[in-house]
Amino acid sequence: MPLTPHIEKHFTAGDAVRDIVIGMSDGLTVPFALAAGLTGAIAQSRLIITAGLAEIAAGSIAMGLGGYLAARGDAEHYRHELARERDEIQRIPEAEAQEVSDIFRSYGLSDVESASVVQSLRQRPKDWVSFMMRFELGLEEPNPERAWKSALTIAFAYVIGGMIPLSAYLLISDARAALRMSMIVTLVALAVFGAIKGKFTGVPVLRSAFQTAVIGGVAAAAAFAIARSIS
Amino acid sequence: MPLTPHIEKHFTAGDAVRDIVIGMSDGLTVPFALAAGLTGAIAQSRLIITAGLAEIAAGSIAMGLGGYLAARGDAEHYRHELARERDEIQRIPEAEAQEVSDIFRSYGLSDVESASVVQSLRQRPKDWVSFMMRFELGLEEPNPERAWKSALTIAFAYVIGGMIPLSAYLLISDARAALRMSMIVTLVALAVFGAIKGKFTGVPVLRSAFQTAVIGGVAAAAAFAIARSIS
Repeated sequence: MPLTPHIEKHFTAGDAVRDIVIGMSDGLTVPFALAAGLTGAIAQSRLIITAGLAEIAAGSIAMGLGGYLAARGDAEHYRHELARERDEIQRIPEAEAQEVSDIFRSYGLSDVESASVVQSLRQRPKDWVSFMMRFELGLEEPNPERAWKSALTIAFAYVIGGMIPLSAYLLISDARAALRMSMIVTLVALAVFGAIKGKFTGVPVLRSAFQTAVIGGVAAAAAFAIARSIS
Repeated sequence: MPLTPHIEKHFTAGDAVRDIVIGMSDGLTVPFALAAGLTGAIAQSRLIITAGLAEIAAGSIAMGLGGYLAARGDAEHYRHELARERDEIQRIPEAEAQEVSDIFRSYGLSDVESASVVQSLRQRPKDWVSFMMRFELGLEEPNPERAWKSALTIAFAYVIGGMIPLSAYLLISDARAALRMSMIVTLVALAVFGAIKGKFTGVPVLRSAFQTAVIGGVAAAAAFAIARSIS
């Protein structure tokens, strides 16, 4: 079960941007909501900063390491399936050839119509394996060397995102006043980030800006209400 | 740019289990690490519970709503590409037919060998479009009705996961003592969860249990060290 974010076929800007988007989405939202929530219960910025920094450490490590292991797991999964496919093509070529026909049959092609493709693939086991990996299993070869880079990029983006809402608390010692500043700064940052994300994801820019800000706002309001009600 | 977690081709247990894994991975890790971190700065469980519940609210909403929007975005992306593919097949069938040949050529097949498949697809535009979506673009039709269900499952799993480390603080008012209990309970829960996750992801069960517990432990230790150093 690959758990890395969906492989991007139409993504125009490379893996690094994707990792930044993943890390910053949560980095901007969760520390912001946590700090806002604690402001419902605590009057002083100092403790909120402590909690916020602890959250940023925890969240960036959990996301980064989690992403690293997921990427490594995907690479392993791919190798495992590749070995199995290679083995099957050697051991039970008739059954595998039938699987190729079956793939085409699901698109309405008769065995006769797909026969020349099946025949041709059987002559070149390497291409045949590649074909099965992509078309039977829907797997693409992951780049295992990206795992660490990806983990660090996600974690770094989370830290940067998380420092934006916290910066207000660093500057203003009264938590309520800091929250007002934090809300303005973070909602603007969320909208700008959402707009940029929209450009890359193909979602209309304004809608993406609005949605991203709303998620942050709703999460912050819920955290505030909960912390308030129990304090 | 689809941002939903990778579509699972080999996943044996359905979408609900996948959503539970996604939500619980972070739910067990981040509130645990945050609570542990705050124990480095605060002696009383009460405030840590407030912060923990605020984090659980923020994290579950951010992950749930984020997942919902990502799923809706993917469905929209698919519809958009489907409409474009349909249009191209009507408007420029020669170019699209050449694209089919090109796909096969990348697996070493000559245009002659793939000709019968190309011919057959051209006679059935609907199958042809399906074929292009899957084999040219690598896209699978997302189920837009799952978006809400998926969001709620992820959020719910996050809440359940997060309540496990917090439960120790609910029972024990001295934060240091609560942390010891929380560590035992949560590391056991992480290991069990990691083992179950390993079964589904094909990662060896013991290794998955160990890795999952280590991520939680490292995140908690880092959060503890940071909160301690600034308090």
